[in-house]
Amino acid sequence: MTSPDPALLSINTATVRAQWRLPQIIEALVRHGIRGIAPWRDQVDAAGLKDSAARIRDAGLTVTGLCRGGMFAAEDGQGRRAALDDNRRAVDEAVTLGARCLVLVVGGLPKDRTGRIVSKDLAGARSMVRDGLGELLDYARNAGMPLAIEPLHPMYAADRACVNTLAQANDLCDELGPDGRQGLGVALDVYHVWWDPALQREIARAGEHERLFAYHICDWLVPTRDLLNDRGMMGDGIIDLPLIRGWVEAAGYRGMHEVEIFSADNWWRRDPDEVLLTCRHRHADAS
Amino acid sequence: MTSPDPALLSINTATVRAQWRLPQIIEALVRHGIRGIAPWRDQVDAAGLKDSAARIRDAGLTVTGLCRGGMFAAEDGQGRRAALDDNRRAVDEAVTLGARCLVLVVGGLPKDRTGRIVSKDLAGARSMVRDGLGELLDYARNAGMPLAIEPLHPMYAADRACVNTLAQANDLCDELGPDGRQGLGVALDVYHVWWDPALQREIARAGEHERLFAYHICDWLVPTRDLLNDRGMMGDGIIDLPLIRGWVEAAGYRGMHEVEIFSADNWWRRDPDEVLLTCRHRHADAS
Repeated sequence: MTSPDPALLSINTATVRAQWRLPQIIEALVRHGIRGIAPWRDQVDAAGLKDSAARIRDAGLTVTGLCRGGMFAAEDGQGRRAALDDNRRAVDEAVTLGARCLVLVVGGLPKDRTGRIVSKDLAGARSMVRDGLGELLDYARNAGMPLAIEPLHPMYAADRACVNTLAQANDLCDELGPDGRQGLGVALDVYHVWWDPALQREIARAGEHERLFAYHICDWLVPTRDLLNDRGMMGDGIIDLPLIRGWVEAAGYRGMHEVEIFSADNWWRRDPDEVLLTCRHRHADAS
Repeated sequence: MTSPDPALLSINTATVRAQWRLPQIIEALVRHGIRGIAPWRDQVDAAGLKDSAARIRDAGLTVTGLCRGGMFAAEDGQGRRAALDDNRRAVDEAVTLGARCLVLVVGGLPKDRTGRIVSKDLAGARSMVRDGLGELLDYARNAGMPLAIEPLHPMYAADRACVNTLAQANDLCDELGPDGRQGLGVALDVYHVWWDPALQREIARAGEHERLFAYHICDWLVPTRDLLNDRGMMGDGIIDLPLIRGWVEAAGYRGMHEVEIFSADNWWRRDPDEVLLTCRHRHADAS
């Protein structure tokens, strides 16, 4: 396996979110010669949408995705309408930022306004996700913004996303908008899907429909000490990243490789310039 | 959904392992009117195999499974042979205990003798599991001991088991011994599979081949604070246990319901009589 093109490196801003605000991250990416960024909405909001869009444009960065829309399941119609309204705003923000896609973390079981899960009906939650996606897709198509469903690891099925395999995401796309060029696709994050025996086949299936919109990398640590914030830097864990990249490239993906690392006890505590330098090296050597 | 028959309750000894040794657990199950037990090999070893078998027999308990065999992947042939030898001993112990099956946690990526993972080749690990299972099956059939493959949650794919869905376990059974009456089947633990969109279909598939050998229950907590030892008591989490039990019963399963809870910060710290009492109540009310 040859090394990836260094120009394809993108940084999801969560990777240095504990250390820097968005304007600092944009400056740092330029300083490190990194050409892609995927910001989170709260960081954009804190820095101002128009100002952030201008800074990113002036820096010449590709926005590999905006994180994130989704969270479709809710206790009642009012909750679902509120989610849809927020998702429409996310689409608009992604358009302003010139993002390649809006990344969707679809939500888990329905919650009430306090965030408490109020139902164990997983199939029902999955239906709400399908319906919410369908509604949002109309809006996003009009806005010209591709939607990328991100399958999340099954350990997040209850509270974050009940789409837990690439097969499920592919099935949703087949049902709602089979041709990726029409604006519905997937964001593939190795952290969530590396274990899946059907991964190679489902990546090929996504490629056939031109629906691979984003590719996220990091690593799975053994042991993993926290379900949410203990992701590893590429090369520090057990994911065969070159193998999966090979599958993604064979499926026709030519986009960037976005590093997204939540790491409360390690990378979020380090000098963020060291983090970005390490991302560069590990992208070249271990991805 | 009607409540389950209280006579079907079985206790996996891990549920009170922090408080009691095996002889105490056997006495307590009798005291609480619980009629099934699934011991772990280390507890059996500590109490003595023959003495444990006699105590369990005298108590009239059904042994719903012996935990556990498996861990097939290894760094080299020597490691794989050592695993196979240990698995044969586990079969013999299960026979002595009169267990309904030997539960197999198949192992993750290959490790060296110190327990360090030495390969990222997940497909290769899965091949080793298939080969190891095939060899063990010959031995187990001669001994008359059914082998139950337990699919483990994908969060354990690297270090504990690379069989992570019921579909995968069903595929292995189809390949190695399709008719469950010939000694190869599955142990279904809701903790590992509740999230799977294909669960209902794959349970039915397992039932068609008479390969549902064991049914384990507990609950998935939100939030889950530890990947290994934060399982919930039935009713305290988000798994729709009556729904899954309905699928299992529809597939023809008439065996016991084995409670297996690893809970370092909660149930392992409580009075074990209270734990068993709670198991009885929650089996009746929330399973």
